[in-house]
Amino acid sequence: MNIVDFLTTVPLFRGLNREQYDHLAMIATDQEYAKGQSIFAEGDPGEGFFMVMSGQVKIYKLSFEGKEQILHIFGPGEPFAEAAVFIGSPYPAHAMALAPSRVLFLPRRAFIELINRQPELALNMLAALSLRLKKFAQLIEELSLKEVPDRLAAHLLSLSDQQQGRDQVVLPVSKTQLAGLLGTIPETLSRIFNKMAKAGMISTDGPRITIQDREALDQLANGERKL
Amino acid sequence: MNIVDFLTTVPLFRGLNREQYDHLAMIATDQEYAKGQSIFAEGDPGEGFFMVMSGQVKIYKLSFEGKEQILHIFGPGEPFAEAAVFIGSPYPAHAMALAPSRVLFLPRRAFIELINRQPELALNMLAALSLRLKKFAQLIEELSLKEVPDRLAAHLLSLSDQQQGRDQVVLPVSKTQLAGLLGTIPETLSRIFNKMAKAGMISTDGPRITIQDREALDQLANGERKL
Repeated sequence: MNIVDFLTTVPLFRGLNREQYDHLAMIATDQEYAKGQSIFAEGDPGEGFFMVMSGQVKIYKLSFEGKEQILHIFGPGEPFAEAAVFIGSPYPAHAMALAPSRVLFLPRRAFIELINRQPELALNMLAALSLRLKKFAQLIEELSLKEVPDRLAAHLLSLSDQQQGRDQVVLPVSKTQLAGLLGTIPETLSRIFNKMAKAGMISTDGPRITIQDREALDQLANGERKL
Repeated sequence: MNIVDFLTTVPLFRGLNREQYDHLAMIATDQEYAKGQSIFAEGDPGEGFFMVMSGQVKIYKLSFEGKEQILHIFGPGEPFAEAAVFIGSPYPAHAMALAPSRVLFLPRRAFIELINRQPELALNMLAALSLRLKKFAQLIEELSLKEVPDRLAAHLLSLSDQQQGRDQVVLPVSKTQLAGLLGTIPETLSRIFNKMAKAGMISTDGPRITIQDREALDQLANGERKL
């Protein structure tokens, strides 16, 4: 596959125009790695970011005792190290080819120069990422709405138990942390709180939740009712 | 809440530095909308994008007969119209305040000038969005791994039935479309295909899937086995 054709398939670069793909292809270099070959080490200066064209790349950390902790395994079309490189940090972990791999390298300096000359490239990338993020958020919401309301109801009832069965409970963690605990994102958690409030099950005032209909929450927690 | 404090809470701008927040605040204007007041109409030039500070905003389309189709309801911290504005398109839908709302407006032209002067702002935003996208993708994977393998197994068996019970089936849609149909994203779908191949249930060759262990797929589809 040639580089331009490949770039058009990378979600990070979706929706650019032909000229922008050409410019990216001009600064990109094509690299081959053998199975087990290192691509970069943690702490190396972040001189550029990568996209897997074929093969597989693992991103990992090493403990003090040399034990390996795999953070990610990336396959075709996936970028890696781009966030660190955009910010200008050193590589935050090690990268190694898990299989014979072809990897596209985009040097940071040339990428920044390109954005300086063509801010629309950055705007297009921002637009593409932003749209993708909204789609992902919507999918998370659809996937979460099956179980997260039940888990949230169970959590609120257990908080109430811990707080001597009172109807007013105070969330002990932030809503962002609670979203993580329940396996969703803050946006979706907020919508679930709103739905519960509209259904008359609770009322909310910042981190203070008042249980209005304990029976309904109980049914929700036991899967006998849907939100 | 002042504008800089608000901007630090917006995921789109997470991880910027103090100076960058100040610059954004300088180009932003604070707007108030009454319940039911229009913010923009479909087709208006995309002169800037918005973030909800308080209240709620609905984004909707109108059919030829005037029937309203709500696309999104955005609440505090959520940006809207940013993708269209980044690309330079007109507003793709109507926006109206659903409740008394305070909204931050960032004019496109000033935003582009800011990025011209400070490409690091765009890079930081790209980094933040990119990290957030990876987190979302991981969460989708965790949420999907519960049910998507079962649905994929059922889909493969039904394709085989449609194709005279043959062991080799050809996917009739792209993997991106299939991911959408199964309620996940292409990255996760690929990983599920890989896991199925590693477990010896199938082998894959582009859109051609060969069923290697029909019984295992059957058990997966019936929830009697996990991947």
